Amino acid sequence: MDIVEKLKEIVGSKYVLYKYEELLPYSKDASIFEGKIPMAVVLPRTPEEISKILLLATENNIPVTVRGGGSSLVGGSILLEDGIIVSMARFDSILNINIENRYVISEAGVKLDFLNEQLKKYNHFYPPDPASSITATVGGSINTNAGGLRTVMYGATKEWVLGMEVVLPTGEIVQFGGKTLKRSIGYDLNSLIIGSEGTLGIITKAILKIAPLPEAIGRILAYYEDIESAGMAISLLKKNGYTPYIAEFMDRIAMDSITKVKGIKFPENAKYLILIDVSSTKESLDRFMDEFENVIKQTNPILIKKTKDPQEMEQMYQARKGLYSSQLLERTSPDEYIIIGDIIVPASELPKALKEINDKIIESGFRATLFGHIGDGNIHANIFVNPKDKKMMEGVFNLLNNLGEIALKHDGSVSSEHGIGIEKKELLLLEMKYKNSLKNIEIMKEIKKIIDPKNIMNRGKLI
Amino acid sequence: MDIVEKLKEIVGSKYVLYKYEELLPYSKDASIFEGKIPMAVVLPRTPEEISKILLLATENNIPVTVRGGGSSLVGGSILLEDGIIVSMARFDSILNINIENRYVISEAGVKLDFLNEQLKKYNHFYPPDPASSITATVGGSINTNAGGLRTVMYGATKEWVLGMEVVLPTGEIVQFGGKTLKRSIGYDLNSLIIGSEGTLGIITKAILKIAPLPEAIGRILAYYEDIESAGMAISLLKKNGYTPYIAEFMDRIAMDSITKVKGIKFPENAKYLILIDVSSTKESLDRFMDEFENVIKQTNPILIKKTKDPQEMEQMYQARKGLYSSQLLERTSPDEYIIIGDIIVPASELPKALKEINDKIIESGFRATLFGHIGDGNIHANIFVNPKDKKMMEGVFNLLNNLGEIALKHDGSVSSEHGIGIEKKELLLLEMKYKNSLKNIEIMKEIKKIIDPKNIMNRGKLI
Repeated sequence: MDIVEKLKEIVGSKYVLYKYEELLPYSKDASIFEGKIPMAVVLPRTPEEISKILLLATENNIPVTVRGGGSSLVGGSILLEDGIIVSMARFDSILNINIENRYVISEAGVKLDFLNEQLKKYNHFYPPDPASSITATVGGSINTNAGGLRTVMYGATKEWVLGMEVVLPTGEIVQFGGKTLKRSIGYDLNSLIIGSEGTLGIITKAILKIAPLPEAIGRILAYYEDIESAGMAISLLKKNGYTPYIAEFMDRIAMDSITKVKGIKFPENAKYLILIDVSSTKESLDRFMDEFENVIKQTNPILIKKTKDPQEMEQMYQARKGLYSSQLLERTSPDEYIIIGDIIVPASELPKALKEINDKIIESGFRATLFGHIGDGNIHANIFVNPKDKKMMEGVFNLLNNLGEIALKHDGSVSSEHGIGIEKKELLLLEMKYKNSLKNIEIMKEIKKIIDPKNIMNRGKLI
Repeated sequence: MDIVEKLKEIVGSKYVLYKYEELLPYSKDASIFEGKIPMAVVLPRTPEEISKILLLATENNIPVTVRGGGSSLVGGSILLEDGIIVSMARFDSILNINIENRYVISEAGVKLDFLNEQLKKYNHFYPPDPASSITATVGGSINTNAGGLRTVMYGATKEWVLGMEVVLPTGEIVQFGGKTLKRSIGYDLNSLIIGSEGTLGIITKAILKIAPLPEAIGRILAYYEDIESAGMAISLLKKNGYTPYIAEFMDRIAMDSITKVKGIKFPENAKYLILIDVSSTKESLDRFMDEFENVIKQTNPILIKKTKDPQEMEQMYQARKGLYSSQLLERTSPDEYIIIGDIIVPASELPKALKEINDKIIESGFRATLFGHIGDGNIHANIFVNPKDKKMMEGVFNLLNNLGEIALKHDGSVSSEHGIGIEKKELLLLEMKYKNSLKNIEIMKEIKKIIDPKNIMNRGKLI
């Protein structure tokens, strides 16, 4: 069977890529991993076309990987075997912005920043805001249960997906969830898809909850000399009943790369920065900023700065979101790449966990940056590696394993918002073993078999 | 095999009920349905004991129904075949209240009101607040994805369960989810349990998210002569970007029963009441109450009342929560019971849906009360019936079916927060057929088979 011809019959020849130079970019995503060159990349426009593609793949046992923005950091959007890529690029329409019902119906290929630009016109927003939101899509972010900067106040993607349309590998086009704020109609298949990393089907559209934008936002920047005090700021705020709108952490290397790329300067003696946004009503913002500041002062920062200047705040927000790209400029050779750790711990564990992570990285000898959405306990480590250096890669996976162990020891999780992909399959096992819950993996595998009997969807990922 | 003896070996003879008069109450829950007299009721204290009980049941093909507060309105906590009831009454400890990490770890048998009494000491709360919270338990409310009065602002139970310990029918004690605010570690088995109505395993403890109590709350009561205007209030508030803390609806019959039981009086010419609580900061509450009022005025209420008196507000809140019990006093004969409808529609559909529901009930000739958590679109209908009158019961199921159809026509759902149980299995099929998603039922059945191969857990319920 000529798969390219079959695909052309389904979507039209214009929407099947098959030449080497067209296929090559699809062997990579934003991770360090390299995948197979796809047999074909197909760009369908309707769920019915996807249904035909998946049936074809199931009947002929051809692996299928769905691709949104390709911003996976764990190898989620590449092929590990000969197979086809289904690009969602043409599912790019926002179908309905409904303020009254507080939802937006969006096709899966819509980029998150674009979605939020449209919602802003209505003074509303879709809270999940991964740093990659300029390229990350609705479908991709659902598939990893994406978090991002605003999770500390608004929760992750899981909290914001009311329903979706999914094409199953066996060709059925089904509706999961719905348009209402709650329901009690049996097993929550909608949630089953969230975080399933493209292994259960292809999301074609989603009904996403939206929220009014906060009335007023101010920012507190607190600089620290030691990492434990920085971690203490978050736990102390929460202990006192305060919830930041966002709360980010970065080390000196991160600050320096922002200075280099964006020109934003930071105090010279500061080793760590906690960036906290406070949101409230217009009458109460100043009081809350003072109250937040008073708590933060108890953690001995070397300097506190406050601002309510929207432009200054937006510039720094974008700088934080661009940190991964900024860091890429710090590579010392073209062979060097970044692998990114993504662990999470509860707030109370942050001071100790941060210290232990920092010590472990120093001990490992790897060059790395620490930063993250500290408000929800999420700590990222950008580690510079050369993927071609096998011994180095062994070392870095060993380090990632150690960081995972630190997270587990502190009641946390080995994967916070990037997913498992191919990078963290061992770490997933580690967590389930640690929790005496290996049965979970068994159940996941059985669920996978029910929905994807030929194991065509993102074969080799997650489980 | 003598099941009673076997159970006694597991939990001690004190904790196995087997005499007729002890068993009888367990053949009923808060619904109109009558179940089998259990073979035994067992009250374990540890997950290990539950594991042994479920293994015994699986090995001997004995149906098991788990019982929390017994407040199911759809027959969720009774047995349809000879089997045993596992009562969670002894799982009554709150294990950890952690303000810093914003969670409480609670055993499954803890009652929701008790949980919130404890949290109040820390100025925090667990938002899901079903009307039955005085008896409803942590485990039971997770099993139905309970909603309640505060869902309009805080979402349903699904949004508040970080993790749980579950004993599977095959005896494994597993941990789902975790203690962190987000994670991305494969299929969300935690969410799979939420709303599963005791058909997949027994929840022994849960890690529940908690939130700081609002700083300030005020109340607006708006009285209406026509039902569509009442529905309009909610959609217009949301359209203008406002989210009530709670928003309840009730008709004249409901008001009258509250007057009778609680002595609270309502304006004589009012046919419908919308009760809206506004929460905000102390500086901004008055402004928001004014803004809410201005919007509500546009919907032509015959009277608006505002109050910030905590005692008055609490009294009415409890009256609303006691509505189901108050209505029971309106029974005209001891054979009469209440069956309760539980549909939901998006806000924009409320005016039309309310009108159609009201018309349909009048057309049916049944005596019924309309009320509900209108803020999230949830409309309840208390319908008086005599379960022994077969023809009447046929009529009432026909009416419930019609109400379900109205919900579906208006983008809603047939079951909002009470679950499917035995009452709504037909309605569940109706919804899936309507959404062209019967495949969902198939998947649910397959998932059930994976986790509960002998189908011992709450056999005959949900699917």
